[in-house]
Amino acid sequence: MLINCVVYQEGKKLADIDVEDIGRHVARPGCFVWVALRDASNEELDTMQREFGLHELAVEDARHGHQRPKVEEFGDTLFVVMHSVERGAIDELRVGEVNVFAGRNFVLSVRNRSQHSLLGVRERAEREPELLRQGAGFVLYALMDAVVDRYFPLIDALERELEGVEEEIFVHGAARANIEQLYGLKQRIMTVKHAVTPLMESAAKLWSGRVPAVCEGNREYFRDVYDHLMRINGTLDTLRDTIGTAIQVNLSMVTIEESETTKRLAAWAGLFAVATAFGGIWGMNFEVMPELKWQYGYPMALGFVALTCGLLFWRFRRVGWL
Amino acid sequence: MLINCVVYQEGKKLADIDVEDIGRHVARPGCFVWVALRDASNEELDTMQREFGLHELAVEDARHGHQRPKVEEFGDTLFVVMHSVERGAIDELRVGEVNVFAGRNFVLSVRNRSQHSLLGVRERAEREPELLRQGAGFVLYALMDAVVDRYFPLIDALERELEGVEEEIFVHGAARANIEQLYGLKQRIMTVKHAVTPLMESAAKLWSGRVPAVCEGNREYFRDVYDHLMRINGTLDTLRDTIGTAIQVNLSMVTIEESETTKRLAAWAGLFAVATAFGGIWGMNFEVMPELKWQYGYPMALGFVALTCGLLFWRFRRVGWL
Amino acid sequence: MLINCVVYQEGKKLADIDVEDIGRHVARPGCFVWVALRDASNEELDTMQREFGLHELAVEDARHGHQRPKVEEFGDTLFVVMHSVERGAIDELRVGEVNVFAGRNFVLSVRNRSQHSLLGVRERAEREPELLRQGAGFVLYALMDAVVDRYFPLIDALERELEGVEEEIFVHGAARANIEQLYGLKQRIMTVKHAVTPLMESAAKLWSGRVPAVCEGNREYFRDVYDHLMRINGTLDTLRDTIGTAIQVNLSMVTIEESETTKRLAAWAGLFAVATAFGGIWGMNFEVMPELKWQYGYPMALGFVALTCGLLFWRFRRVGWL
Amino acid sequence: MLINCVVYQEGKKLADIDVEDIGRHVARPGCFVWVALRDASNEELDTMQREFGLHELAVEDARHGHQRPKVEEFGDTLFVVMHSVERGAIDELRVGEVNVFAGRNFVLSVRNRSQHSLLGVRERAEREPELLRQGAGFVLYALMDAVVDRYFPLIDALERELEGVEEEIFVHGAARANIEQLYGLKQRIMTVKHAVTPLMESAAKLWSGRVPAVCEGNREYFRDVYDHLMRINGTLDTLRDTIGTAIQVNLSMVTIEESETTKRLAAWAGLFAVATAFGGIWGMNFEVMPELKWQYGYPMALGFVALTCGLLFWRFRRVGWL
Amino acid sequence: MLINCVVYQEGKKLADIDVEDIGRHVARPGCFVWVALRDASNEELDTMQREFGLHELAVEDARHGHQRPKVEEFGDTLFVVMHSVERGAIDELRVGEVNVFAGRNFVLSVRNRSQHSLLGVRERAEREPELLRQGAGFVLYALMDAVVDRYFPLIDALERELEGVEEEIFVHGAARANIEQLYGLKQRIMTVKHAVTPLMESAAKLWSGRVPAVCEGNREYFRDVYDHLMRINGTLDTLRDTIGTAIQVNLSMVTIEESETTKRLAAWAGLFAVATAFGGIWGMNFEVMPELKWQYGYPMALGFVALTCGLLFWRFRRVGWL
Repeated sequence: MLINCVVYQEGKKLADIDVEDIGRHVARPGCFVWVALRDASNEELDTMQREFGLHELAVEDARHGHQRPKVEEFGDTLFVVMHSVERGAIDELRVGEVNVFAGRNFVLSVRNRSQHSLLGVRERAEREPELLRQGAGFVLYALMDAVVDRYFPLIDALERELEGVEEEIFVHGAARANIEQLYGLKQRIMTVKHAVTPLMESAAKLWSGRVPAVCEGNREYFRDVYDHLMRINGTLDTLRDTIGTAIQVNLSMVTIEESETTKRLAAWAGLFAVATAFGGIWGMNFEVMPELKWQYGYPMALGFVALTCGLLFWRFRRVGWL
Repeated sequence: MLINCVVYQEGKKLADIDVEDIGRHVARPGCFVWVALRDASNEELDTMQREFGLHELAVEDARHGHQRPKVEEFGDTLFVVMHSVERGAIDELRVGEVNVFAGRNFVLSVRNRSQHSLLGVRERAEREPELLRQGAGFVLYALMDAVVDRYFPLIDALERELEGVEEEIFVHGAARANIEQLYGLKQRIMTVKHAVTPLMESAAKLWSGRVPAVCEGNREYFRDVYDHLMRINGTLDTLRDTIGTAIQVNLSMVTIEESETTKRLAAWAGLFAVATAFGGIWGMNFEVMPELKWQYGYPMALGFVALTCGLLFWRFRRVGWL
Repeated sequence: MLINCVVYQEGKKLADIDVEDIGRHVARPGCFVWVALRDASNEELDTMQREFGLHELAVEDARHGHQRPKVEEFGDTLFVVMHSVERGAIDELRVGEVNVFAGRNFVLSVRNRSQHSLLGVRERAEREPELLRQGAGFVLYALMDAVVDRYFPLIDALERELEGVEEEIFVHGAARANIEQLYGLKQRIMTVKHAVTPLMESAAKLWSGRVPAVCEGNREYFRDVYDHLMRINGTLDTLRDTIGTAIQVNLSMVTIEESETTKRLAAWAGLFAVATAFGGIWGMNFEVMPELKWQYGYPMALGFVALTCGLLFWRFRRVGWL
Repeated sequence: MLINCVVYQEGKKLADIDVEDIGRHVARPGCFVWVALRDASNEELDTMQREFGLHELAVEDARHGHQRPKVEEFGDTLFVVMHSVERGAIDELRVGEVNVFAGRNFVLSVRNRSQHSLLGVRERAEREPELLRQGAGFVLYALMDAVVDRYFPLIDALERELEGVEEEIFVHGAARANIEQLYGLKQRIMTVKHAVTPLMESAAKLWSGRVPAVCEGNREYFRDVYDHLMRINGTLDTLRDTIGTAIQVNLSMVTIEESETTKRLAAWAGLFAVATAFGGIWGMNFEVMPELKWQYGYPMALGFVALTCGLLFWRFRRVGWL
Repeated sequence: MLINCVVYQEGKKLADIDVEDIGRHVARPGCFVWVALRDASNEELDTMQREFGLHELAVEDARHGHQRPKVEEFGDTLFVVMHSVERGAIDELRVGEVNVFAGRNFVLSVRNRSQHSLLGVRERAEREPELLRQGAGFVLYALMDAVVDRYFPLIDALERELEGVEEEIFVHGAARANIEQLYGLKQRIMTVKHAVTPLMESAAKLWSGRVPAVCEGNREYFRDVYDHLMRINGTLDTLRDTIGTAIQVNLSMVTIEESETTKRLAAWAGLFAVATAFGGIWGMNFEVMPELKWQYGYPMALGFVALTCGLLFWRFRRVGWL
C-alpha cells in the first residue's frame, strides 16, 4: 500500500507525484524522491524495482520478509533491513520489518507487519529543511533513529519486569511463578536481541572505515545510531546474564525452602512419634507392669510425654527448625 | 553414477556428451560443461580427475567423504563441500554430502548419501539462459542456494518441536518426557549446526575481500547465500541457548514439584500421625484413666481427634500445602 | 550550575571569566579555558555549545544523560562520557555521569547526579603549572584519572564483601543469607562493570594507534589510565566468576546439609519406629502370649527395646549419621 | 636411539649413512637427509644439534619434552612439536611426543614415549619418489599427516563411548555409573584436545599468509592437515559440549527418579499409616465403644480399613504414583 | 634495600659500584649496569629514577605495587611487571612483585614482597659471558625466565591436589570436604592465572611484530618465555574447566547418594511400618476376634509379620535398595 511518494528539492517538498513518474524525477539533478510503502504488494515492489533500478536480490528480500537485520550495498544503493518489535497481547512481542532502500537521490521505505507508523519521521524532516537538504543519507539516518528509538521503551519494560521478579525471588512460595516469568522474559529478550545485535554489527560499516557514499556526510549521525544500538545490546546482555543467575538463584531458593520445610515437618513428626512410641509401650499387655496400677500413673505418663515433647520443641526451636 | 553430462554455450544447452569428451569440450573457448554424479564410484572420480584436471587432495576428499563443509581453492578451481541434512526415520537426521568442483568453465557436482535430487537446479537454470550464461559462478551459486534452502524446513521443524516442549515444560509430570526430548533435540540441532557453521565461515570468502575468479561476477549472489547461512546459524544458536535454559528450567520445575509433593504428603502424614498418637495414648493400659469410663468418652475422643485433624487440614490448606 | 570558568596561560591561572567571554578567550592563541559545570541546565549547555562550537549530537548526549561510557571524536573535539559510581544507602550504588569536552585549547566538564566534587583535580593541576601547561590533553587525563581512581575503593569494598560471604559459605544454615548477598553483590558488580568496561574499550584509542590530536603529547598518561581500567576490569571479571562458583557451591552445600539432616532425622525416626513396632506387637490381644505372663516380661521387653535402639544408635553414630 | 639415517637424491634413497657424515651430506647440493630417532639420549641430540646446526632452544625443548604442540621457526629451520595419543590400559590415554626439525634439505624426527612407529611413513614416501623429490616440506607433511591420522580412531572410540552412555542415560538406576563414565570421558577428551588444538592453531601458519620456505611448495598439503585438525577439533568441542549437557541431564534424571521414588514410597507409607491409625483408634480402651461389641465388628473394621486402603491405592495409581 | 649494583663490560663483571656512580657508567659506551633492589624504599626509587632517567609513571607503578603484570615501553626503556607467586602457610598463596626496567645498557630489577631471591640468575649469567655480552635484552630474558620457571612447581602442586580430589569424588560421604577443597583450589588457580595471563598477553609483543629495541636480538628467547606462559595458561584453563565439572559432578554425587539413602531408609521404615500396622490391628479391642483365641494365634501372627517383612526385604534387596 502506497503511503507517500514525494519529490523534494533543496530540502523542501516540491509535490506529491505519481508512482510512474518516479524514474523521471530521480533522473533530475538536485531532486530527491522519498517513497513510503506499507505491507507492499508484489506489483508495488515490481514497480519500485523498475522505477528506482533496484537489485533483484534486495527486492526478493523485501518481498519475502523474515530476513535478519542487515545493511547491504548493491552498487550505489544501500539496502537496510530493520526489525520493529511491538508489544502485542499480554507478554507477547510482535516482530515486523522496516526495509529501506537508499540511493544517491532517493529513499524507499517498506514497512511490513508493523503497527507503528513512520509518518512522524517525514513530518519532523520536513520541518527542518536544512537537514533534509542533505538528502538520502539524512533520511536513512532519521528512519533508523526512529526504529532504534522505539527499542528503548521495550527495554525499559523488560528491565522493570525483571526487577519485579527480583523482588519476588527471595519470597517464600513464589518459585513456580518466578521461573515461568523468567523463562518468558528470556524469550522476549532474545526476540529483541535478534532485532538489535545484527543491526548493530551491520551499522558499524555506516560510520567507521570505508563508508558508503550515501552516508559519507553523516558519519557522526550514524555513529550516534550505532551508539544507541551498542547501549541497547549491552543492556540486553546484562538482562540475559541476570536472568541466568536469577534462574540459578531461584533453584537455590527452592532447594533451601524445601530443606527448611523438611526440617519443620520432621520436627513435628518427631514430637508425635515420641507420643506414639510411649503410647505403644504403655499399651503393651504384660501382666506385671507396676506403673499401670499407680494412682497417678496416667497423668504422670501424660506429663512425661508432654515434658519430652516440650524439651524437643524447645531444642528444635533453638536450632531454628520450628 | 552419472546423472548428467551436458555442454552449454551462451547459456543454452548444446548437447549431452560422453564422459570421455569432457576434456575436449572444456578446452573449447565459450563452452561450459556441467556434470552431475551421484554416489560416485572410484572409477568415475578417476575419470573426472583426468578430464577436468582436478587436484589429488580434493578428489581424495570427495572419495572418502565425511569432510567438514568447506570452500577450498586449488589454483583456479574451487572445491566446495556441503552437507545435506534430511529427516530419516522418527526423530533422526541423515547427513549426506554434496561436493562441487567449479572451474573457469565447468562445474562438477557429486552427491553422496543424499535422497534429494538436485535436478531441479539444472532445470531452473536452463529456463533462464541469461543467468546460466554467467557460467560456473552462477551454477555454483544455484547449487549452494539449493542446498542451503533445504535447511530452512529443518530449522522450522526443530523450532516447532521446541515450542511443543515449551508448552509442556510448566505442566505437572511431564519432566521426564521433556528432558528426553530436549536432549534429542539438542543432538539434532548440533547435527544441523555442523552442516551450517563451517559452510558459513567458508562462504564468507566467496563474496568479501579477495574473491576467487569463478565467483567474481556473482558477489551479490554469494553474499545472499552467506546471509541465509548467517540467519540459520543465528537461529540454531538461539535454539541451543533456549534448550540449555529449558533443561535448567525443567530441573527447577522437577525440584519445585517435588517440593510441593513433599509438602502435600507431609500434611496428610501429619493428619494420620495425630490420630495414631491419640489412639496410642488412649490405648494405654493404666488402670486409672478416668476418661475411659465416661459414657461419651469414645465419641468425645473421636471428636477431639477429628477436630484436631480438621484444624490442621484447614491450616495446611491456607498455606497452600493441600 | 556553573562551578568554575577560568582562563590559563602558560599553565598559570589568568582570571575567572564570564561565560559570555569564553568564545573570545578560546580564540586567543596560547590561552586555555577550563570550565566546570554541575547538573547543567539546558540554557547552560546551549551557551557552552555556542561558545565552544560543540557538536549538536555530543551536546544532546550530555543533555539527556544515561549514555554508556565512551570516547568520541567530533572533528578536533573529544567528547568523553564517564560514569561515576558512588555508594548510596545500604548496599546500593548510585550512578552519575561526568561528561568532558576537550578541544585544542579548552576543556569543559559537566558532572551530573554525582556527589563527589572534581575541584581537587583543578587544585592539584594549578599547583603543577609545568604539567598544566600541556593544556587540554593533560586536564582530560587528570579528570579521567580522578574518576577512575574512585573505582578502586568500590572494588575493594566489593572484594571484602565477597570475602565475608566466602567465610560463611561452608557454615551451617547460612545458605539463605549467602545467596541473597551473592545476588545483590553480583548486581552491584554489574553496575560497576557497566561503568568500567565500555570506558576501557574506548580509552584504548587515546594511546594506541592513531591518537586524537588533543592526547598526542600524553600517550603514556592515557596508557596509565587504560592500565588502571584493565586492572579494575580484570578484578570485576574475577569477582563475577567467583560469585558464579560461590552460588553453585552454596547450592551444593544446601544439598549436602539437607542430605545430612535427612540422615539424622531418619536415624531418630528409626529408633522410635523400633520402639513403636515392639510396643504394637506386645500390645496385641492374643490370649496365648506366654511372655506377657512372665514376672519380668515387662522389664525384659523394655530392655530388649532399649538394647535394639542402643545398637542402632551405635551403628548410626559409627557411619556418621548421628 | 637411532632408527634411520638416510640420504636421498632426486627422491631416491642413496645410502644409509653414519651420524657423523650428516653435516657433509647436508652441505651437498641436491641431497636430502632424513634422520629418525626414538627416545633420543642427550648425546644423540647434541650430535644432531652439531650436525644440522639446530637452535639451542629447540633442542632444549626436544630434550625436556612436555612441550605443548607448536610450530616454530628458527631461521630457515622449522621445529614442530606434536603429541601422539595412544590407548593404554583400560580407559587411559598415554601421551607421547613427536618432534620434527625440518630444514632446507633435511628432516629430523624424534619420537618420545610413543609406541607407534613412524616407519610406515618412510616406506610409503620411498615408494613415491616423485613426491619425495619435493624434499623436506613433503616429508614434514607426511609425518604430520601420519600423526594426525592416528587421532581419528581415538575420536571414534570416544564418540562410541559417549553413545554408549547416552543409551543408558534415561535408564533407571544407571546414574552413578553414567556420571563416573562421563567424567572419565571428559578427562580423555581434554587430553586429546590438548594435543589437537594448539597444533591446529600453529599449523595455520604453514599454509596461509606468509609461509615458511620449507612448506612453500606444499601449501595445499598442509591445508589438508589443517583441515583434518579442524574437523577433529570441531568433533572434540561437540563431544565436550554434549558431555556437559549429558551431566546436566543425568542430574535431572536423578532428581526425577528420586521424585518418583519419593511418591511411590509415600503412597505405600500412606496405606500403612491408614491401617495403623484405625488400629490405634479401635485399640483404645474406652469402656463404651459400641462397635467393639458387635458380632461382625472386627470383619467390618478390617473391611473398612481394606476399603480405605483400596480407594487410596486406586487413586495413587490413577495419578501415576504406584 | 640495595642487593647488587654492578657494571659489566663485554659480558664480564668490571666492578661493584656506588649507586651515585650509576649515571656516569650508564653514559660510558660499551658498559652495562645491572642493579637489583629488594622492597625498595621511596628514596632508593627516587635515586634510580634520577640515575637511569626513568619515566615518572613507571616509577610510580613500582612504588605503589599491586599492578597487573604488563610490559610497557617508555621511549627506549622497557618496564616489565611480573608477579611472583609463592606457597605460604597451608593452602595459601602469597603474591609478590618483580618489576624490571630494561634500557639500552642497563637493567634494574625491583623485587617486592617476595621470598625467592633472584641471585641465582645473576650467578648463572656471570658464568656465561658470551650470553651476558648481549646486554639488557638477555638479562631481561633471564629474569623473566626465572620468574616464569617458578610457576611450574606451583602448577604441578595444583594438578596433584586436583587429582587428589578426583580420587575422592566418587567415594561416599566425601562431598563436603571435596567441595571445600575444590573451591579453595579454584581460588588459588585464579591467583596464579592473574599472574600468568596478563604477562602472557604482554610478552607477545617482545617477539612478534615490531619488537622493542632492547629485545631485538633475542626474539627466540622471548618466544620461548611466551611459549612457557602459553603452556601454563593452557594448563590453568584446563584446571579451571575441570574444577567446574568436578563441582557439578560432586553435586550429582550428593544427589545420587541422597537418593540411595532415601531408598534404604524408606525400605527399613516400610518393614517396621508393616509390623506396626499388624500390631495395631491385632491390638484392637473388638470382642469377637476369633484368631486371638487360637492356641497358636500369637506365633502365627508373629510368623505372618516376619514373613511379610521377609518378603519385602527380599524384594527391596532385589531392586538394590538394601
